[in-house]
Amino acid sequence: MSTIGIGLIGTGFMGKCHALAYGAAKAVFGDIPTPRLELLCETPADKAATMAEQFGFARSTDDWHVLINDPAVDIVCVTTPNKLHAEIAIAALAAGKHVHCEKPMALTLDEAEAMARAAEAAKGKTIVGYNYIRNPAFQHARRLIAEGAIGRVIHFRGFVDEDYQADPDLPWTWRATKAEAGLGALGDLGCHMISMAVELMGPIRSVIGDIRTVHAMRPSPDDGTHKPVENEDIASAIVEFANGVQGLFSTSRSAWGRKNRMAVEVHGAQGMICFDQERMNELQLYQNSGDKAMQGFRTIMTGPVHEPYGHFVPASGHQLGFNDLKTIEAAAFLRAIAGGAEAYPSFQQALQFERVIHAIATSDGQRVML
Amino acid sequence: MSTIGIGLIGTGFMGKCHALAYGAAKAVFGDIPTPRLELLCETPADKAATMAEQFGFARSTDDWHVLINDPAVDIVCVTTPNKLHAEIAIAALAAGKHVHCEKPMALTLDEAEAMARAAEAAKGKTIVGYNYIRNPAFQHARRLIAEGAIGRVIHFRGFVDEDYQADPDLPWTWRATKAEAGLGALGDLGCHMISMAVELMGPIRSVIGDIRTVHAMRPSPDDGTHKPVENEDIASAIVEFANGVQGLFSTSRSAWGRKNRMAVEVHGAQGMICFDQERMNELQLYQNSGDKAMQGFRTIMTGPVHEPYGHFVPASGHQLGFNDLKTIEAAAFLRAIAGGAEAYPSFQQALQFERVIHAIATSDGQRVML
Amino acid sequence: MSTIGIGLIGTGFMGKCHALAYGAAKAVFGDIPTPRLELLCETPADKAATMAEQFGFARSTDDWHVLINDPAVDIVCVTTPNKLHAEIAIAALAAGKHVHCEKPMALTLDEAEAMARAAEAAKGKTIVGYNYIRNPAFQHARRLIAEGAIGRVIHFRGFVDEDYQADPDLPWTWRATKAEAGLGALGDLGCHMISMAVELMGPIRSVIGDIRTVHAMRPSPDDGTHKPVENEDIASAIVEFANGVQGLFSTSRSAWGRKNRMAVEVHGAQGMICFDQERMNELQLYQNSGDKAMQGFRTIMTGPVHEPYGHFVPASGHQLGFNDLKTIEAAAFLRAIAGGAEAYPSFQQALQFERVIHAIATSDGQRVML
Amino acid sequence: MSTIGIGLIGTGFMGKCHALAYGAAKAVFGDIPTPRLELLCETPADKAATMAEQFGFARSTDDWHVLINDPAVDIVCVTTPNKLHAEIAIAALAAGKHVHCEKPMALTLDEAEAMARAAEAAKGKTIVGYNYIRNPAFQHARRLIAEGAIGRVIHFRGFVDEDYQADPDLPWTWRATKAEAGLGALGDLGCHMISMAVELMGPIRSVIGDIRTVHAMRPSPDDGTHKPVENEDIASAIVEFANGVQGLFSTSRSAWGRKNRMAVEVHGAQGMICFDQERMNELQLYQNSGDKAMQGFRTIMTGPVHEPYGHFVPASGHQLGFNDLKTIEAAAFLRAIAGGAEAYPSFQQALQFERVIHAIATSDGQRVML
Repeated sequence: MSTIGIGLIGTGFMGKCHALAYGAAKAVFGDIPTPRLELLCETPADKAATMAEQFGFARSTDDWHVLINDPAVDIVCVTTPNKLHAEIAIAALAAGKHVHCEKPMALTLDEAEAMARAAEAAKGKTIVGYNYIRNPAFQHARRLIAEGAIGRVIHFRGFVDEDYQADPDLPWTWRATKAEAGLGALGDLGCHMISMAVELMGPIRSVIGDIRTVHAMRPSPDDGTHKPVENEDIASAIVEFANGVQGLFSTSRSAWGRKNRMAVEVHGAQGMICFDQERMNELQLYQNSGDKAMQGFRTIMTGPVHEPYGHFVPASGHQLGFNDLKTIEAAAFLRAIAGGAEAYPSFQQALQFERVIHAIATSDGQRVML
Repeated sequence: MSTIGIGLIGTGFMGKCHALAYGAAKAVFGDIPTPRLELLCETPADKAATMAEQFGFARSTDDWHVLINDPAVDIVCVTTPNKLHAEIAIAALAAGKHVHCEKPMALTLDEAEAMARAAEAAKGKTIVGYNYIRNPAFQHARRLIAEGAIGRVIHFRGFVDEDYQADPDLPWTWRATKAEAGLGALGDLGCHMISMAVELMGPIRSVIGDIRTVHAMRPSPDDGTHKPVENEDIASAIVEFANGVQGLFSTSRSAWGRKNRMAVEVHGAQGMICFDQERMNELQLYQNSGDKAMQGFRTIMTGPVHEPYGHFVPASGHQLGFNDLKTIEAAAFLRAIAGGAEAYPSFQQALQFERVIHAIATSDGQRVML
Repeated sequence: MSTIGIGLIGTGFMGKCHALAYGAAKAVFGDIPTPRLELLCETPADKAATMAEQFGFARSTDDWHVLINDPAVDIVCVTTPNKLHAEIAIAALAAGKHVHCEKPMALTLDEAEAMARAAEAAKGKTIVGYNYIRNPAFQHARRLIAEGAIGRVIHFRGFVDEDYQADPDLPWTWRATKAEAGLGALGDLGCHMISMAVELMGPIRSVIGDIRTVHAMRPSPDDGTHKPVENEDIASAIVEFANGVQGLFSTSRSAWGRKNRMAVEVHGAQGMICFDQERMNELQLYQNSGDKAMQGFRTIMTGPVHEPYGHFVPASGHQLGFNDLKTIEAAAFLRAIAGGAEAYPSFQQALQFERVIHAIATSDGQRVML
Repeated sequence: MSTIGIGLIGTGFMGKCHALAYGAAKAVFGDIPTPRLELLCETPADKAATMAEQFGFARSTDDWHVLINDPAVDIVCVTTPNKLHAEIAIAALAAGKHVHCEKPMALTLDEAEAMARAAEAAKGKTIVGYNYIRNPAFQHARRLIAEGAIGRVIHFRGFVDEDYQADPDLPWTWRATKAEAGLGALGDLGCHMISMAVELMGPIRSVIGDIRTVHAMRPSPDDGTHKPVENEDIASAIVEFANGVQGLFSTSRSAWGRKNRMAVEVHGAQGMICFDQERMNELQLYQNSGDKAMQGFRTIMTGPVHEPYGHFVPASGHQLGFNDLKTIEAAAFLRAIAGGAEAYPSFQQALQFERVIHAIATSDGQRVML
């Protein structure tokens, strides 16, 4: 198997995460194509060079156009601010590259649709960074549901909460603008919930949404004034899945104490499964079976029996971390590319998640069909 | 202080709970009027006599008309099947009694309104059995919110789940009919959530609800046929409180593994409070204050500092149980009667809870103003 | 079945608990002899009268000699300060009464042995107030172990922690003296752990103990001086049960944050059971059976299938409280008396627990055979 | 800063962990010397070559003597079976290398002492792989204790439990022999507890230990016979720290359901801290301060304020995993080497942990001074 050249654009939170993931994937999994950390793009140029050395990339550039046209680059990782995703991803596809883009796809649904069309037309593969669905605990939930461990699914609840915008005294930033950030909590957090819900429940047919900006003004960092927050802090929705089941979503970026809560409850006719990313190595399972006096929610700790945990650690309960999920995602993309298969979720598939969050954002209490 | 005669109608789950509560209240609290277990009504008469002996009532009858007209009875406790609440409660008020009625008030909103009108016109006091709001842990939450411990309230979520109708093979019963049971999960469970939400957040202005019967048919106990379930297993709603805050409700009587989950999250601008009745002696509090490195949700175990816990046990963490909540409620009613004040929630006040659950039941995805 | 007259000595923490328990037992259980709250003893006489009215006792006295000789009293409940237990209990037995004595039995092992000898010689039944072993969750643990749910037992750990003596600035009291209080944490808390360990594991053969007074001096409430603490704040022991299994105990009355932690772990060859009184309605069970990918500790919430929970509430997960455990204990004593059987633990049986705590107290790191 | 050549011996559980750690350390931390994955040793040679390619090492060998004498190798990572640690580590030190050795140091105390003497005499630095003390949550506990967050420390409890030898039907292996494995649970697990206890509490002065082999015979994989287990499944000890505080330890390799429980409780005069590696991104803290009605254990989730968490992820609660701890350890060793300082724990320092576990193993209920 020849190596696959990685070009990474961005060195922030997600840029580092991608660098670590592609750096570790071969050592972790063994039976995947070998990624080669080829070219890193950042500005200015000296920062690009420094970060390339730190991240272990062979070369650096301060121009993403150079990166997407570099013949040694096979995969373009797009971890820039969200507003640049569409332009770069579409250009990279046009340049014949595979594209690994962070979520959300874009600021607007129009842009996301353009990305999906570009992917449709391109020969390169695409994947969007919905890393949480890679968690062995979460995949175990998916398998258990699919295998009937909780019987017919009858209800779903999902919550994604953080507190990075909880403090009313936090200064106003670009995050507060539709032009720079697009959606608020729905774009940052809610789309993850959609990806998780769809993974467990299948597509969503309709939504009734209600969004709130609870910190309507924030202090400007520049002067003594306050500036308006244009996007939502909190969004809730009652949804219906294509299978007819009712679902309930809520997400907040202003939920004090929640650091990475991504909690799902799947109610079945014979049991229940609960998962919370804040305890990402655990799964809660209740089954209506056996002696009633011994029934209870059980806390399953992930281990080698829960693929692909064992590639990281051969002992149960020793725990994966956040960055390991991206390693699993990177390995999946490398495998898809080598095998000629589609990766999941491609731009076309992830577009469905975007449609849901934008429908919630615009519903205003009315049912929106998808 | 003279004694107050108790007449209890019903000896089931709630009947026993009332008997224990009025039996213990004086010993627990001391500074309340002494209740006198005067007359118990059950059918047939010999069962009434047996249960009177067991529960410590002085006399028994098999005719509730006799009970509500007995001059030694001051308070009539109505713990019959829900469909009898309205008739008995209205008659008892007409007979000049105080009435302690279990929830929900009645099968229909019309009946509940008639009860409220009767209470309005009567000289007797009324109270509806919303026992969960009596929990010292829950009342501590209310006080903390009122005192600003989590700042301005910005979001609410509430869930009430049990699994007594989770098994699809459970036989069809009267519970499945509108005529005998009225609402489903909303009547049994959801009304508790409304009482708790209002206690913490104030009145509800509007709801958008969606209800589901997930086990549409149940096997008839009589023959091999299946009969339809007429009321909801699951109900969800997006609500708006009168203070403008968004709330989210969901309740299920078919939630495997949930035995008495009554979970609330109150999101504030400076913190969060969470409570779950399944761990009824604990409260979760997060505050954005002090050293960031030491912030976290704290688990507060109730103790004598959380009134009226100390009347039951003088040591923290020793825990109250379900029946103790009814004792607190009974004591509150006895105090109200002796002091001439209204008890909470009176029929008129509890009617508001009924209005909310009926609005959710009939919303069908449309916003309903209350 | 005729009634059984209760004479209660003491109206403090445990006195109230006994009053509530004997007051509720008949209503809760039905099929037990009816206790009659006959005579209450407290000093001074007016307090005795007031408390008799509050607790529902027919008469009062300020002289315990009067109480133990009253012909209408069948059971004498001894809830006085511990230093009076021996004298009163022995006198009550001599007067032909049944005796329900709170734990620990006495300040010294000599006194406890005298009590056991008196019980041996008397016709009255005896019971010591080890209420925690009455918990349905705990009894479920006992049954599961006995039935082999976790296979052969191989290891035990038990902890009893509270924080009522955690604050170093708490004033010196009689609790700090051997003469008034006897043992420290071992007498207040540790004896409960022994009762729980023996219930699950059988008798204890040997102990190696180590005790510590970590707050050696406490401020005198009377003057500016500090006075010595004569008994232990913390005690730990490695024990061996008669079945050859190693056990580990530790108890502290100075464990900040622990309000009523009574945590046991029973390690078996095929599973593990954990229980903590601070979540007294839950039991943790792990079994090595079935699909490895689905194994985990399950949280069993107690319900009607766990006897005698259902006598209190017919619905699972609604929860018993601390006082309910004493009600179960009182009912057991009433049944034993009516049926002519011994109650558990009798003075003779509870003496074994006393022997263990005194052996730990005096071991000083040496193995002591029991 | 020039690069530092890594030579890794072994490719099992810990070998992979070291490969990932040295592979990621530079990308994670930036400001450390750059490790260069130079030479990998495994047998046979073709496996060595395959694993070198997977792990990203430049070259491979099947002879550890070659590796320790290779001039491009600066650090020798010893992740072989424990019985080879001493010989290889001593030879590597003699060859002038720095040595990163996994725990336990050796099978016998004699060997460990020889290693410490070799380290004393060598110019190379040494470190032993006590990775759990690197956890930001655990280090936060250490800092909180040092800063007085819980006041004077008065008691310690520590438990290390897994279930990899819980099944009595597991076949007999070399793990069961003193000759191949040395100690049992104490060597595999207990030494970690000692490292954690010493990190929080300082040195240990004396131990009273008791060990048990609860599965005395195991089925031979070769024939139908059973063969004896020579080392302990369970070990418990009462210890005294040099500061005079009592501690309690217990470890089991046969504790069903425990996957990586490393639980510590540190009791202080003003609070308590609890940590459990099975929830390695959380810390429990109780402080006796502020309003009594609001006190409770708080669950602190680690984040960027808890160094060096932020080097991995800039967002709180996103969680580190097991392998990340080794990355922190590797970075610490690289820094020590570059800076000329000693790393912790060196062979000499880790020898103290070995002394404690061997003292527990041989105590037989007698106090052993250290």
